[in-house]
Amino acid sequence: MMGAGTFRLVGLDPGLRHTGWGIIDVSGNRLSHVANGAVHSDSDLSLAERLVQLHDGLTAVIERWQPDEAAVEEVFVNKNPASTLKLGMARGVALLVPARAGLPVAEYPTNLVKKSVVGAGHADKNQVQIMVGMLLPGVEMKSADAADALAVAICHAHHAATRRVVTLQRSVT
Amino acid sequence: MMGAGTFRLVGLDPGLRHTGWGIIDVSGNRLSHVANGAVHSDSDLSLAERLVQLHDGLTAVIERWQPDEAAVEEVFVNKNPASTLKLGMARGVALLVPARAGLPVAEYPTNLVKKSVVGAGHADKNQVQIMVGMLLPGVEMKSADAADALAVAICHAHHAATRRVVTLQRSVT
Repeated sequence: MMGAGTFRLVGLDPGLRHTGWGIIDVSGNRLSHVANGAVHSDSDLSLAERLVQLHDGLTAVIERWQPDEAAVEEVFVNKNPASTLKLGMARGVALLVPARAGLPVAEYPTNLVKKSVVGAGHADKNQVQIMVGMLLPGVEMKSADAADALAVAICHAHHAATRRVVTLQRSVT
Repeated sequence: MMGAGTFRLVGLDPGLRHTGWGIIDVSGNRLSHVANGAVHSDSDLSLAERLVQLHDGLTAVIERWQPDEAAVEEVFVNKNPASTLKLGMARGVALLVPARAGLPVAEYPTNLVKKSVVGAGHADKNQVQIMVGMLLPGVEMKSADAADALAVAICHAHHAATRRVVTLQRSVT
Protein backbone atom coordinates (compact mmCIF):
# COMPACT_ATOMS: atom_id res chain seq x y z
CA MET A 1 0.00 0.00 0.00
CA MET A 2 1.13 3.52 -0.75
CA GLY A 3 0.38 6.90 0.84
CA ALA A 4 -3.18 8.25 0.97
CA GLY A 5 -4.46 9.24 -2.48
CA THR A 6 -1.72 7.36 -4.28
CA PHE A 7 -2.26 3.88 -5.60
CA ARG A 8 -0.32 1.47 -7.73
CA LEU A 9 -1.73 -0.46 -10.69
CA VAL A 10 -0.55 -3.42 -12.68
CA GLY A 11 -1.78 -3.77 -16.26
CA LEU A 12 -1.57 -7.16 -17.98
CA ASP A 13 -1.72 -8.02 -21.68
CA PRO A 14 -2.12 -11.81 -21.69
CA GLY A 15 -0.66 -14.17 -24.27
CA LEU A 16 0.58 -17.75 -23.96
CA ARG A 17 3.99 -16.97 -25.42
CA HIS A 18 4.42 -13.48 -23.92
CA THR A 19 2.29 -11.83 -21.24
CA GLY A 20 3.11 -8.13 -20.97
CA TRP A 21 2.99 -6.35 -17.61
CA GLY A 22 3.23 -2.68 -16.69
CA ILE A 23 3.21 -0.96 -13.31
CA ILE A 24 2.14 2.67 -12.84
CA ASP A 25 1.50 4.90 -9.84
CA VAL A 26 -1.57 7.11 -9.79
CA SER A 27 -1.76 10.20 -7.59
CA GLY A 28 -4.86 12.28 -8.27
CA ASN A 29 -4.74 12.80 -12.04
CA ARG A 30 -0.96 12.32 -12.18
CA LEU A 31 0.38 9.08 -13.62
CA SER A 32 3.96 7.89 -13.30
CA HIS A 33 5.76 4.91 -14.72
CA VAL A 34 7.24 2.38 -12.29
CA ALA A 35 8.29 -0.67 -14.32
CA ASN A 36 7.32 -2.82 -17.30
CA GLY A 37 8.28 -6.06 -18.98
CA ALA A 38 6.95 -9.39 -20.19
CA VAL A 39 6.78 -12.91 -18.82
CA HIS A 40 7.61 -15.59 -21.36
CA SER A 41 6.76 -19.26 -21.76
CA ASP A 42 8.90 -21.75 -23.60
CA SER A 43 7.03 -23.15 -26.63
CA ASP A 44 9.05 -26.41 -26.42
CA LEU A 45 7.35 -27.27 -23.12
CA SER A 46 3.90 -28.74 -22.52
CA LEU A 47 0.93 -26.43 -22.09
CA ALA A 48 0.79 -27.25 -18.38
CA GLU A 49 4.48 -26.34 -17.92
CA ARG A 50 4.04 -23.13 -19.92
CA LEU A 51 1.13 -22.07 -17.72
CA VAL A 52 3.30 -22.70 -14.66
CA GLN A 53 5.98 -20.43 -16.18
CA LEU A 54 3.42 -17.63 -16.73
CA HIS A 55 2.00 -18.18 -13.24
CA ASP A 56 5.38 -18.05 -11.54
CA GLY A 57 6.55 -15.06 -13.58
CA LEU A 58 3.43 -13.00 -12.84
CA THR A 59 3.50 -14.01 -9.19
CA ALA A 60 7.08 -12.68 -8.97
CA VAL A 61 6.05 -9.38 -10.61
CA ILE A 62 3.23 -8.88 -8.11
CA GLU A 63 5.41 -9.79 -5.14
CA ARG A 64 8.16 -7.45 -6.34
CA TRP A 65 6.01 -4.40 -7.14
CA GLN A 66 3.08 -4.81 -4.73
CA PRO A 67 0.31 -3.21 -6.83
CA ASP A 68 -3.04 -2.33 -5.21
CA GLU A 69 -5.23 -3.19 -8.20
CA ALA A 70 -4.94 -5.11 -11.48
CA ALA A 71 -6.36 -4.54 -14.95
CA VAL A 72 -6.33 -7.21 -17.67
CA GLU A 73 -6.90 -6.70 -21.38
CA GLU A 74 -9.85 -8.67 -22.76
CA VAL A 75 -8.04 -9.49 -25.97
CA PHE A 76 -10.24 -9.67 -29.06
CA VAL A 77 -9.89 -12.93 -30.95
CA ASN A 78 -10.96 -13.76 -34.47
CA LYS A 79 -8.58 -16.59 -35.34
CA ASN A 80 -9.25 -20.31 -35.02
CA PRO A 81 -10.74 -21.98 -31.91
CA ALA A 82 -7.38 -23.58 -31.01
CA SER A 83 -5.66 -20.20 -30.63
CA THR A 84 -8.70 -18.78 -28.81
CA LEU A 85 -8.49 -21.67 -26.34
CA LYS A 86 -4.77 -21.01 -25.74
CA LEU A 87 -5.39 -17.32 -25.27
CA GLY A 88 -8.13 -18.22 -22.78
CA MET A 89 -5.60 -20.24 -20.78
CA ALA A 90 -3.14 -17.33 -20.67
CA ARG A 91 -5.90 -14.90 -19.75
CA GLY A 92 -7.09 -17.27 -17.06
CA VAL A 93 -3.63 -17.20 -15.47
CA ALA A 94 -3.48 -13.38 -15.81
CA LEU A 95 -6.81 -13.10 -13.95
CA LEU A 96 -6.04 -15.81 -11.41
CA VAL A 97 -2.65 -14.61 -10.15
CA PRO A 98 -3.64 -11.07 -9.02
CA ALA A 99 -7.02 -12.31 -7.72
CA ARG A 100 -5.28 -14.94 -5.57
CA ALA A 101 -2.99 -12.18 -4.26
CA GLY A 102 -6.12 -10.37 -3.05
CA LEU A 103 -6.13 -7.58 -5.67
CA PRO A 104 -9.36 -6.32 -7.27
CA VAL A 105 -9.11 -7.30 -10.96
CA ALA A 106 -10.80 -5.28 -13.71
CA GLU A 107 -11.08 -6.26 -17.38
CA TYR A 108 -11.15 -3.88 -20.34
CA PRO A 109 -11.78 -4.76 -24.00
CA THR A 110 -8.95 -3.84 -26.38
CA ASN A 111 -10.88 -1.08 -28.17
CA LEU A 112 -11.71 0.62 -24.85
CA VAL A 113 -8.01 0.51 -23.90
CA LYS A 114 -7.08 2.11 -27.23
CA LYS A 115 -9.85 4.69 -26.97
CA SER A 116 -8.77 5.57 -23.45
CA VAL A 117 -5.11 6.04 -24.42
CA VAL A 118 -5.21 7.29 -28.01
CA GLY A 119 -8.77 8.61 -28.25
CA ALA A 120 -9.80 6.13 -30.97
CA GLY A 121 -10.82 2.49 -30.65
CA HIS A 122 -9.07 1.48 -33.86
CA ALA A 123 -5.62 2.92 -33.17
CA ASP A 124 -2.66 0.78 -34.27
CA LYS A 125 0.11 -0.51 -31.98
CA ASN A 126 2.43 2.33 -32.98
CA GLN A 127 -0.02 5.04 -31.96
CA VAL A 128 -0.62 3.28 -28.64
CA GLN A 129 3.12 3.21 -27.92
CA ILE A 130 3.55 6.88 -28.80
CA MET A 131 0.69 7.91 -26.50
CA VAL A 132 1.92 5.68 -23.66
CA GLY A 133 5.29 7.43 -24.04
CA MET A 134 3.62 10.86 -23.78
CA LEU A 135 1.40 9.91 -20.84
CA LEU A 136 4.29 8.33 -18.89
CA PRO A 137 7.27 10.68 -19.40
CA GLY A 138 10.64 8.95 -19.28
CA VAL A 139 9.19 5.45 -19.79
CA GLU A 140 11.33 2.93 -21.63
CA MET A 141 9.09 0.20 -23.04
CA LYS A 142 10.68 -3.24 -23.03
CA SER A 143 8.44 -4.71 -25.75
CA ALA A 144 5.14 -4.21 -27.61
CA ASP A 145 3.43 -6.47 -25.04
CA ALA A 146 4.80 -4.37 -22.18
CA ALA A 147 3.57 -1.18 -23.93
CA ASP A 148 0.09 -2.72 -24.29
CA ALA A 149 0.15 -3.68 -20.61
CA LEU A 150 0.99 -0.08 -19.63
CA ALA A 151 -1.91 1.08 -21.84
CA VAL A 152 -4.29 -1.22 -19.91
CA ALA A 153 -3.00 0.22 -16.62
CA ILE A 154 -3.55 3.78 -17.93
CA CYS A 155 -7.08 2.84 -19.07
CA HIS A 156 -7.81 1.51 -15.59
CA ALA A 157 -6.38 4.65 -13.99
CA HIS A 158 -8.77 6.81 -16.05
CA HIS A 159 -11.78 4.64 -15.23
CA ALA A 160 -10.82 4.17 -11.60
CA ALA A 161 -10.37 7.95 -11.20
CA THR A 162 -13.86 8.57 -12.62
CA ARG A 163 -15.24 5.92 -10.29
CA ARG A 164 -13.52 7.50 -7.30
CA VAL A 165 -14.78 11.00 -8.11
CA VAL A 166 -18.30 9.64 -8.51
CA THR A 167 -18.04 7.83 -5.18
CA LEU A 168 -16.70 10.98 -3.52
CA GLN A 169 -19.49 13.16 -4.93
CA ARG A 170 -22.04 10.62 -3.82
CA SER A 171 -20.63 10.54 -0.31
CA VAL A 172 -20.55 14.39 -0.16
CA THR A 173 -24.16 14.96 -1.27
CA MET B 1 3.14 -42.08 -3.36
CA MET B 2 1.79 -45.60 -3.09
CA GLY B 3 3.35 -49.05 -3.00
CA ALA B 4 5.56 -50.27 -5.86
CA GLY B 5 3.52 -50.99 -8.99
CA THR B 6 0.49 -49.07 -7.74
CA PHE B 7 -0.12 -45.51 -8.74
CA ARG B 8 -2.91 -43.02 -8.27
CA LEU B 9 -4.38 -40.87 -11.03
CA VAL B 10 -6.59 -37.82 -11.06
CA GLY B 11 -8.72 -37.20 -14.15
CA LEU B 12 -10.13 -33.72 -14.78
CA ASP B 13 -12.98 -32.61 -17.03
CA PRO B 14 -12.63 -28.83 -17.10
CA GLY B 15 -15.47 -26.34 -17.31
CA LEU B 16 -15.85 -22.83 -15.89
CA ARG B 17 -19.09 -23.63 -14.07
CA HIS B 18 -18.26 -27.23 -13.08
CA THR B 19 -14.89 -28.98 -13.29
CA GLY B 20 -15.28 -32.71 -12.72
CA TRP B 21 -12.58 -34.70 -10.94
CA GLY B 22 -12.08 -38.43 -10.45
CA ILE B 23 -9.41 -40.37 -8.57
CA ILE B 24 -8.52 -43.99 -9.38
CA ASP B 25 -5.80 -46.37 -8.29
CA VAL B 26 -3.99 -48.49 -10.87
CA SER B 27 -2.21 -51.70 -9.91
CA GLY B 28 -1.00 -53.62 -12.96
CA ASN B 29 -4.11 -53.91 -15.14
CA ARG B 30 -6.44 -53.54 -12.14
CA LEU B 31 -8.29 -50.26 -11.70
CA SER B 32 -10.12 -49.21 -8.56
CA HIS B 33 -12.24 -46.21 -7.76
CA VAL B 34 -11.10 -43.91 -4.96
CA ALA B 35 -13.25 -40.76 -5.12
CA ASN B 36 -15.00 -38.39 -7.51
CA GLY B 37 -16.82 -35.08 -7.51
CA ALA B 38 -16.89 -31.64 -9.07
CA VAL B 39 -15.57 -28.22 -8.19
CA HIS B 40 -18.01 -25.40 -8.85
CA SER B 41 -17.71 -21.69 -9.52
CA ASP B 42 -20.39 -19.15 -8.74
CA SER B 43 -21.65 -17.49 -11.93
CA ASP B 44 -22.57 -14.33 -9.97
CA LEU B 45 -18.88 -13.63 -9.31
CA SER B 46 -16.30 -12.07 -11.64
CA LEU B 47 -14.26 -14.32 -13.93
CA ALA B 48 -11.17 -13.75 -11.79
CA GLU B 49 -13.01 -14.80 -8.61
CA ARG B 50 -14.49 -17.85 -10.36
CA LEU B 51 -11.02 -18.98 -11.46
CA VAL B 52 -9.82 -18.61 -7.88
CA GLN B 53 -12.72 -20.86 -6.78
CA LEU B 54 -11.74 -23.53 -9.33
CA HIS B 55 -8.07 -23.18 -8.38
CA ASP B 56 -8.70 -23.52 -4.66
CA GLY B 57 -11.14 -26.41 -5.13
CA LEU B 58 -8.77 -28.41 -7.33
CA THR B 59 -5.84 -27.65 -5.04
CA ALA B 60 -7.84 -29.09 -2.13
CA VAL B 61 -8.66 -32.25 -4.15
CA ILE B 62 -4.98 -32.82 -4.96
CA GLU B 63 -3.87 -32.18 -1.39
CA ARG B 64 -6.56 -34.52 -0.05
CA TRP B 65 -6.00 -37.46 -2.46
CA GLN B 66 -2.31 -37.08 -3.36
CA PRO B 67 -2.39 -38.45 -6.93
CA ASP B 68 0.87 -39.32 -8.73
CA GLU B 69 -0.22 -38.19 -12.20
CA ALA B 70 -2.95 -36.09 -13.77
CA ALA B 71 -4.93 -36.37 -17.02
CA VAL B 72 -7.04 -33.53 -18.42
CA GLU B 73 -9.71 -33.78 -21.10
CA GLU B 74 -8.98 -31.62 -24.15
CA VAL B 75 -12.62 -30.64 -24.53
CA PHE B 76 -13.81 -30.21 -28.09
CA VAL B 77 -15.38 -26.82 -28.74
CA ASN B 78 -17.59 -25.74 -31.60
CA LYS B 79 -19.58 -22.93 -30.04
CA ASN B 80 -18.80 -19.22 -30.16
CA PRO B 81 -15.36 -17.68 -29.42
CA ALA B 82 -16.56 -16.26 -26.07
CA SER B 83 -17.40 -19.72 -24.68
CA THR B 84 -14.19 -21.17 -26.15
CA LEU B 85 -12.23 -18.46 -24.32
CA LYS B 86 -13.98 -19.28 -21.02
CA LEU B 87 -13.36 -22.98 -21.50
CA GLY B 88 -9.70 -22.16 -22.16
CA MET B 89 -9.54 -20.37 -18.81
CA ALA B 90 -11.01 -23.35 -16.96
CA ARG B 91 -8.71 -25.76 -18.80
CA GLY B 92 -5.77 -23.52 -17.98
CA VAL B 93 -6.55 -23.81 -14.28
CA ALA B 94 -7.04 -27.61 -14.62
CA LEU B 95 -3.57 -27.90 -16.21
CA LEU B 96 -1.90 -25.39 -13.90
CA VAL B 97 -2.94 -26.78 -10.52
CA PRO B 98 -1.55 -30.35 -10.88
CA ALA B 99 1.54 -29.07 -12.74
CA ARG B 100 2.32 -26.66 -9.89
CA ALA B 101 1.92 -29.57 -7.47
CA GLY B 102 4.70 -31.35 -9.40
CA LEU B 103 2.50 -33.95 -11.14
CA PRO B 104 3.07 -34.99 -14.75
CA VAL B 105 0.00 -33.80 -16.68
CA ALA B 106 -1.27 -35.58 -19.80
CA GLU B 107 -4.02 -34.35 -22.11
CA TYR B 108 -6.44 -36.52 -24.07
CA PRO B 109 -8.97 -35.38 -26.69
CA THR B 110 -12.60 -36.23 -25.88
CA ASN B 111 -12.99 -38.80 -28.67
CA LEU B 112 -9.88 -40.69 -27.48
CA VAL B 113 -11.31 -40.76 -23.96
CA LYS B 114 -14.60 -42.18 -25.26
CA LYS B 115 -12.83 -44.67 -27.51
CA SER B 116 -10.67 -45.83 -24.64
CA VAL B 117 -13.63 -46.35 -22.29
CA VAL B 118 -16.51 -47.35 -24.58
CA GLY B 119 -14.64 -48.52 -27.67
CA ALA B 120 -16.12 -45.84 -29.93
CA GLY B 121 -15.14 -42.18 -30.33
CA HIS B 122 -18.73 -41.02 -30.75
CA ALA B 123 -20.26 -42.63 -27.66
CA ASP B 124 -22.83 -40.54 -25.78
CA LYS B 125 -22.60 -39.49 -22.13
CA ASN B 126 -24.86 -42.32 -21.04
CA GLN B 127 -22.67 -45.03 -22.58
CA VAL B 128 -19.60 -43.46 -20.99
CA GLN B 129 -21.26 -43.56 -17.56
CA ILE B 130 -22.34 -47.19 -17.98
CA MET B 131 -18.81 -48.27 -18.98
CA VAL B 132 -17.19 -46.27 -16.17
CA GLY B 133 -19.55 -48.10 -13.79
CA MET B 134 -18.46 -51.49 -15.22
CA LEU B 135 -14.75 -50.66 -15.19
CA LEU B 136 -14.84 -49.30 -11.63
CA PRO B 137 -17.10 -51.71 -9.69
CA GLY B 138 -18.93 -50.09 -6.80
CA VAL B 139 -18.40 -46.54 -8.03
CA GLU B 140 -21.04 -43.96 -7.23
CA MET B 141 -20.77 -41.09 -9.68
CA LYS B 142 -21.59 -37.71 -8.16
CA SER B 143 -22.40 -35.99 -11.49
CA ALA B 144 -21.95 -36.25 -15.26
CA ASP B 145 -18.78 -34.12 -14.99
CA ALA B 146 -17.38 -36.44 -12.33
CA ALA B 147 -18.15 -39.46 -14.56
CA ASP B 148 -16.32 -37.80 -17.46
CA ALA B 149 -13.36 -37.08 -15.18
CA LEU B 150 -13.20 -40.76 -14.15
CA ALA B 151 -13.29 -41.67 -17.87
CA VAL B 152 -10.25 -39.43 -18.49
CA ALA B 153 -8.42 -41.11 -15.60
CA ILE B 154 -9.26 -44.57 -17.06
CA CYS B 155 -8.05 -43.44 -20.50
CA HIS B 156 -4.77 -42.31 -18.95
CA ALA B 157 -4.45 -45.60 -17.04
CA HIS B 158 -4.74 -47.54 -20.33
CA HIS B 159 -2.22 -45.35 -22.12
CA ALA B 160 0.14 -45.13 -19.18
CA ALA B 161 0.05 -48.94 -18.81
CA THR B 162 1.00 -49.36 -22.48
CA ARG B 163 3.78 -46.83 -22.05
CA ARG B 164 5.10 -48.62 -18.98
CA VAL B 165 5.10 -52.04 -20.68
CA VAL B 166 6.91 -50.55 -23.65
CA THR B 167 9.47 -48.93 -21.36
CA LEU B 168 9.92 -52.19 -19.48
CA GLN B 169 10.41 -54.21 -22.69
CA ARG B 170 12.88 -51.65 -23.92
CA SER B 171 14.86 -51.80 -20.72
CA VAL B 172 14.88 -55.64 -20.79
CA THR B 173 16.14 -55.99 -24.38
